[in-house]
Amino acid sequence: MSYFNRQPIQFEGPGTNNPFAFRHYQPDAVVGGKTMEEQLRFSMAYWHTLVADGSDPFGRGNMLRPWNHLQGLDLAKARLEGAFELMEILNLPFFCFHDVDIAPEGETLADFFKNVDTIVDEMKGYMASSGRKLLWNTANMFSNPRYVHGAATSNHADVFATAAAQVKNGLDIAKELGAENYVFWGGREGYETLLNTNLELEQDNFARFLHMASDYAKKIGFDGQLLIEPKPKEPTTHQYDTDAATTISFLRKYDLHNRFRLNLEANHATLAGHTFEHELRTARIQGMLGSVDANQGDTLIGWDTDEFPTDIYSTTLAMYEILKNGGLGKGGLNFDAKVRRGSFHAEDLISAHVAGMDTFAWGLKAAHALIEEKVFENLIEDRYRSFTTGIGKEIVDGKATLDSLHAHALTIGDIENLSGGQESLKAKIQDVIYAVR
Amino acid sequence: MSYFNRQPIQFEGPGTNNPFAFRHYQPDAVVGGKTMEEQLRFSMAYWHTLVADGSDPFGRGNMLRPWNHLQGLDLAKARLEGAFELMEILNLPFFCFHDVDIAPEGETLADFFKNVDTIVDEMKGYMASSGRKLLWNTANMFSNPRYVHGAATSNHADVFATAAAQVKNGLDIAKELGAENYVFWGGREGYETLLNTNLELEQDNFARFLHMASDYAKKIGFDGQLLIEPKPKEPTTHQYDTDAATTISFLRKYDLHNRFRLNLEANHATLAGHTFEHELRTARIQGMLGSVDANQGDTLIGWDTDEFPTDIYSTTLAMYEILKNGGLGKGGLNFDAKVRRGSFHAEDLISAHVAGMDTFAWGLKAAHALIEEKVFENLIEDRYRSFTTGIGKEIVDGKATLDSLHAHALTIGDIENLSGGQESLKAKIQDVIYAVR
Amino acid sequence: MSYFNRQPIQFEGPGTNNPFAFRHYQPDAVVGGKTMEEQLRFSMAYWHTLVADGSDPFGRGNMLRPWNHLQGLDLAKARLEGAFELMEILNLPFFCFHDVDIAPEGETLADFFKNVDTIVDEMKGYMASSGRKLLWNTANMFSNPRYVHGAATSNHADVFATAAAQVKNGLDIAKELGAENYVFWGGREGYETLLNTNLELEQDNFARFLHMASDYAKKIGFDGQLLIEPKPKEPTTHQYDTDAATTISFLRKYDLHNRFRLNLEANHATLAGHTFEHELRTARIQGMLGSVDANQGDTLIGWDTDEFPTDIYSTTLAMYEILKNGGLGKGGLNFDAKVRRGSFHAEDLISAHVAGMDTFAWGLKAAHALIEEKVFENLIEDRYRSFTTGIGKEIVDGKATLDSLHAHALTIGDIENLSGGQESLKAKIQDVIYAVR
Amino acid sequence: MSYFNRQPIQFEGPGTNNPFAFRHYQPDAVVGGKTMEEQLRFSMAYWHTLVADGSDPFGRGNMLRPWNHLQGLDLAKARLEGAFELMEILNLPFFCFHDVDIAPEGETLADFFKNVDTIVDEMKGYMASSGRKLLWNTANMFSNPRYVHGAATSNHADVFATAAAQVKNGLDIAKELGAENYVFWGGREGYETLLNTNLELEQDNFARFLHMASDYAKKIGFDGQLLIEPKPKEPTTHQYDTDAATTISFLRKYDLHNRFRLNLEANHATLAGHTFEHELRTARIQGMLGSVDANQGDTLIGWDTDEFPTDIYSTTLAMYEILKNGGLGKGGLNFDAKVRRGSFHAEDLISAHVAGMDTFAWGLKAAHALIEEKVFENLIEDRYRSFTTGIGKEIVDGKATLDSLHAHALTIGDIENLSGGQESLKAKIQDVIYAVR
Ligand SMILES: [Co+2]
Ligand SMILES: [Co+2]
Ligand SMILES: [Co+2]
Ligand SMILES: [Co+2]
Ligand SMILES: [Co+2]
Ligand SMILES: [Co+2]
Ligand SMILES: [Co+2]
Ligand SMILES: [Co+2]
Repeated sequence: MSYFNRQPIQFEGPGTNNPFAFRHYQPDAVVGGKTMEEQLRFSMAYWHTLVADGSDPFGRGNMLRPWNHLQGLDLAKARLEGAFELMEILNLPFFCFHDVDIAPEGETLADFFKNVDTIVDEMKGYMASSGRKLLWNTANMFSNPRYVHGAATSNHADVFATAAAQVKNGLDIAKELGAENYVFWGGREGYETLLNTNLELEQDNFARFLHMASDYAKKIGFDGQLLIEPKPKEPTTHQYDTDAATTISFLRKYDLHNRFRLNLEANHATLAGHTFEHELRTARIQGMLGSVDANQGDTLIGWDTDEFPTDIYSTTLAMYEILKNGGLGKGGLNFDAKVRRGSFHAEDLISAHVAGMDTFAWGLKAAHALIEEKVFENLIEDRYRSFTTGIGKEIVDGKATLDSLHAHALTIGDIENLSGGQESLKAKIQDVIYAVR
Repeated sequence: MSYFNRQPIQFEGPGTNNPFAFRHYQPDAVVGGKTMEEQLRFSMAYWHTLVADGSDPFGRGNMLRPWNHLQGLDLAKARLEGAFELMEILNLPFFCFHDVDIAPEGETLADFFKNVDTIVDEMKGYMASSGRKLLWNTANMFSNPRYVHGAATSNHADVFATAAAQVKNGLDIAKELGAENYVFWGGREGYETLLNTNLELEQDNFARFLHMASDYAKKIGFDGQLLIEPKPKEPTTHQYDTDAATTISFLRKYDLHNRFRLNLEANHATLAGHTFEHELRTARIQGMLGSVDANQGDTLIGWDTDEFPTDIYSTTLAMYEILKNGGLGKGGLNFDAKVRRGSFHAEDLISAHVAGMDTFAWGLKAAHALIEEKVFENLIEDRYRSFTTGIGKEIVDGKATLDSLHAHALTIGDIENLSGGQESLKAKIQDVIYAVR
Repeated sequence: MSYFNRQPIQFEGPGTNNPFAFRHYQPDAVVGGKTMEEQLRFSMAYWHTLVADGSDPFGRGNMLRPWNHLQGLDLAKARLEGAFELMEILNLPFFCFHDVDIAPEGETLADFFKNVDTIVDEMKGYMASSGRKLLWNTANMFSNPRYVHGAATSNHADVFATAAAQVKNGLDIAKELGAENYVFWGGREGYETLLNTNLELEQDNFARFLHMASDYAKKIGFDGQLLIEPKPKEPTTHQYDTDAATTISFLRKYDLHNRFRLNLEANHATLAGHTFEHELRTARIQGMLGSVDANQGDTLIGWDTDEFPTDIYSTTLAMYEILKNGGLGKGGLNFDAKVRRGSFHAEDLISAHVAGMDTFAWGLKAAHALIEEKVFENLIEDRYRSFTTGIGKEIVDGKATLDSLHAHALTIGDIENLSGGQESLKAKIQDVIYAVR
Repeated sequence: MSYFNRQPIQFEGPGTNNPFAFRHYQPDAVVGGKTMEEQLRFSMAYWHTLVADGSDPFGRGNMLRPWNHLQGLDLAKARLEGAFELMEILNLPFFCFHDVDIAPEGETLADFFKNVDTIVDEMKGYMASSGRKLLWNTANMFSNPRYVHGAATSNHADVFATAAAQVKNGLDIAKELGAENYVFWGGREGYETLLNTNLELEQDNFARFLHMASDYAKKIGFDGQLLIEPKPKEPTTHQYDTDAATTISFLRKYDLHNRFRLNLEANHATLAGHTFEHELRTARIQGMLGSVDANQGDTLIGWDTDEFPTDIYSTTLAMYEILKNGGLGKGGLNFDAKVRRGSFHAEDLISAHVAGMDTFAWGLKAAHALIEEKVFENLIEDRYRSFTTGIGKEIVDGKATLDSLHAHALTIGDIENLSGGQESLKAKIQDVIYAVR
């Protein structure tokens, strides 16, 4: 059956007026040596797209969905069917889910795992017949009341154990479904107040948890990437995986940095006071860029709005980092994005994805042009040239000391700096964005 | 001569109406096994107190200072004399300075170093006769136009070299004056825009710079602590030493974490989206808490206001972290705080310090009481008890695996969590603060 | 029956360790010519205290409440009984509610009104027997999906009409129960995006709505105050009643400023970038201070946390404004505050209210002392003295012109300003807070 | 003589690589019935462009300017000559200045006025010969130390009088030079702390000041617009003219709203938590949109960065509001924007203006296309159609009451709302921006 009654979205090019057509996304078009599909590796987020009902802290669910009359496993199966229909309409090669997104929790943990298995079996069939793949799965360890004080960082050992059980199951599923990655987002891994928190024990436990997970993944031969998704706050007052730098610091401290990479979300970046490209760059230069949650926030708003990305500047700079990274590897661009509560029609799901996919495809073309034209590269080579000879080279080669530099400095007259010229650079980016066709 | 015409501030106790008397600060009173003077190690910041003229981006200097008619070395000498008079009035055992605070820059780097030496000689005499000590010194590598694009992270090797020369001089002075610490605050060590920035080279160079500094300190036998002061933004758009976690991450990456500790500032914490106590705790549990810049910000304002600390909740929680750290060691509480532009009379300098010192002394007494009464300790012991036996102990001891925990989890029925009860805890802190006399 | 099994909270004074006793709140103690009960007029918020289940955007409800097993009108009746038990335990003279808090919505609007009437009848009985009163009621016009695009500012006329029907009912109830006030908080009266919004029509309609409500209140002889509660954002991207100044601007534009006053909430103030006392002062000097939602936010967090107030500085300055206002009149201090999700035990409701009531009672005593000692008054009289004679008096009396002032200015030599001295003032407030017993 | 050695910037179209050429700005091209020059009315800001030296709170001036060797009136004259050269190079028809921008303050107020007059005479000559016009002038009443506690809201009557004298002079100059507008930005018209502030007197005095200014303008026959520029904070903790709504509220309260309009700045909007278009819309629908300070902020930064505008989304939506307003009337687009401190070469001034002018010219074309295609208009007509007939019309016509709406509401079944569809709208705007040539 069909839930959405719509043909697959076609490429019609930038001139079209059709909200259900692509302006920029051509899966088979080659940009930078790969097809757009290979470069962008778009993914649908099960939670926002199949499960979310539009409720917020001030209002009930209002989303019009074709399965609103169903419950339990029937609901789960309808959503699963709908998921694959949507991926086909949108030409999305990947999807992502939390365990609780796909199956009802039931009365007991055993029930829950059984329900999940039921759906996973069916999912496997859809994957096989459609060729669509699992970018990543994860365990939701924050919605159930047991996780009120955290999961791996709970003060209660049984809560830790239950979370571990969910992750074991999750990794088994990842292995079974051939997931490219497995993600940890620590929903309530943080604190509400330091006043009642043993910060050291909680962080030690978190590291123990990740070591166990990594060991288990190795044991079962899961060869996907293990990823951590940073976020600074919300729902907790302060989350341990605040941002890329904090998470890398944590991983280094506990000798986990060779086992985990990062899943970076645009909206989480801005909530932490960084640009999206800052987070991507920070991870990239440390070899820690794993995957991307493609959305955008509203920087005038203090909570996670998870909007579909429609800012060409941001997608261009994001794709620049990704191309400089040599692509996303096993990662992808997962639309961890939700339609606004006011966009409650089922077809808003489709037009919103089209908007996001096109803005990223446009950004890919612009980023590729920036690199081809060496807009930043030439400038940067010029700017830092002084480090390729003389005293600069000595510094870089580790031959300089405070003594030698002190002696050198006393021989220098006035130093002539170059202008940073960022106003021109911003105009130049506009040129490139505007020029791509 | 006297610039301030005021006798040393005396302790009069909480009942006084005198703004030029202490309510809580009694240097010789013992709290937690040490005198208040030993616990608090208060320090005066040369820049805000002796040098700042009240100018801001929208207005000229307006501070009424007894040396406003002087210039050059005469001005420097008057400020030096005034500094020691103020420390005597306020009973401050320590002070801190940047090189440019104490001496005029002159025409050349050589001139500058000579001027600094002149003042340092004189300073040594004042220190000897007064018994007051240098908590830390540092080099200002952000005000001079040469540092427009950073110092150790400049794109220009000669700028790097000049910065190195300043630090060499600074470490020589630290050694000569017996400084307890030497501080690095990277004023413009960050970027204005990623578009023209080689982030990797800049961070590598920053690490090279710190290695050289550490090597040099060792070579000359300087036995003070080396400290880095985090700040997220301002003046640059994004600073590399964003916050405690980011700075520790950087230090770990470049194998510098055994050579440097952190100098944490309250206002920089809130600018980074953290509470002051969060930053202190983060550093403390990693053995990285070095020293403290004691001030406060205005969380409704987006720039560094460096106000004198007058929030008893904040100083209580800060002193709690410091006492749990076993004290500040070689560090201290440096008032990196400035009187508001509207408080332009010289005597405002004195009453503002009195307010800050008293709020920290009160906080010390309250924090000590919290620890004596084990307010947090008992609660936390209870909360985390499940990790001392059974499955919890196995987790902590590294004996658990996802498999063993999965098996355990399936045997658990409903989990009964404890309330976090933070509302009561906040009331309890009020009780303790109110009760200290 | 008893839901909470606890005796009424008693005053035990500041020395107590009992979280279920008052340190400062003595209902009958006289402060500033009235009893504390008369000055503070504490009120319980039905929604947070009786209805909220602890769910947030990342987790399900988890609050342990004695009526969790009930549904429909049975649930409503149990909560009603519990409400009056809690008010008795806490000695709260007032309460507040939305229509949807007290009764189930049922299938149709008519059902809903009938259910509300059923409960209102019963409530009347409880009120009569307990002597507790309704501070205010209001209509929830934001949770039901019909209000997705606003109520009085919806683009759909039938939605406007339904909202009007709810308000009619609400005013009838206010009249029947003798409410002191009726409140309008425009949950979704704002916009998600300007792109699809007729701002002018929406604001005109909002004014029409308020005129109708005011006319109806007059017609039925409701003599309580009509109040508007400002909030800048959340749930919508931008709300029309942003803050006190914006709301007053709106009321003036539509000639409604003599019919409505403001209900000011502390957390909404800080979300709008203002201190709580700023909002109170702004309203007070324009005669627009109607009532107060007593809570606090976390200024490092970007959403409405509605915490119980435990900051003595804030409650002192709030009570200062209220005392200078001559008290709250028909208004009160309504605890629009919720226990944290981690404080899910029923007794947390009680200890949290105790913390809030005590912090406000302490603030009342401190504010009264500030006024008695004329701490601000004397200072301000001094500071502005120049406007009581000479050219200053001419300015205030409306006799000066640019010409006359220009002539005067050319005769002035250097102007000697006074220091603002805010550092001392902050220390002085601490003295007063510390000294009150 | 020439300071900048550059020919006037020419239009070369979007394909050019020349940073000193226009891509979109063609002064004589007609868009929406007027030439671009008439629609955009670009203006140069004297302070940022001619005067600013690059100093910030952490560093000295570093801008390379051809007049850096001059002082006093010589410096003032060189800048004046440079200003007209720059306007010619950039083809800017207007400029703006504060009194202190154009002439040295000298020793006394009389000296200052004399210096100003000297330059104004010369300026008149340049204006006559070049045909360039004064968009607005203003008095700087915040930099001089006398204004430490405000100008019209100072606690000192002589300060108020001096400010009045400056404004008298300013209005005389506005009249003499044929300024289109006269602007009030209240740099320090606000408070540092409520603790020492008589808010009511200060706001009353502010209104008295504006009445006097308006009366004087009328008396001398100045027929330009009088404008107030809102800003929420910085330099003061809280400024009275917080945002458009607050300023309009103030103007209404003091019956000044028919005498003043608003000068709205993009960066001040975001500092106040609003989008630029929100402020423009708010003013527009109340007939209060006077003029625009065209710049942009960095929403991840908490202070006023005054960057050149290079965000096509923002300029498109701004120009949409301006076109819907029927244009800017006497107002204009004043580049209250400064090159970054790192862009210290004189030619950065030129390329930065080119970037800003082009982004606004592109935005003008896009906004015109949005209006031509009725993208928003058609949608909005549909969305609000229910208010054109039936119960909706009765509401708008003022015939409905709570009673009549209550009766109507009880007859309504389920209400079917329309989706807000903002995701599609954002994609649609991208289409239009991309398509304009
Ligand atoms: Co995400
Ligand atoms: Co998110
Ligand atoms: Co500091
Ligand atoms: Co600071
Ligand atoms: Co409220
Ligand atoms: Co609230
Ligand atoms: Co401006
Ligand atoms: Co500005």
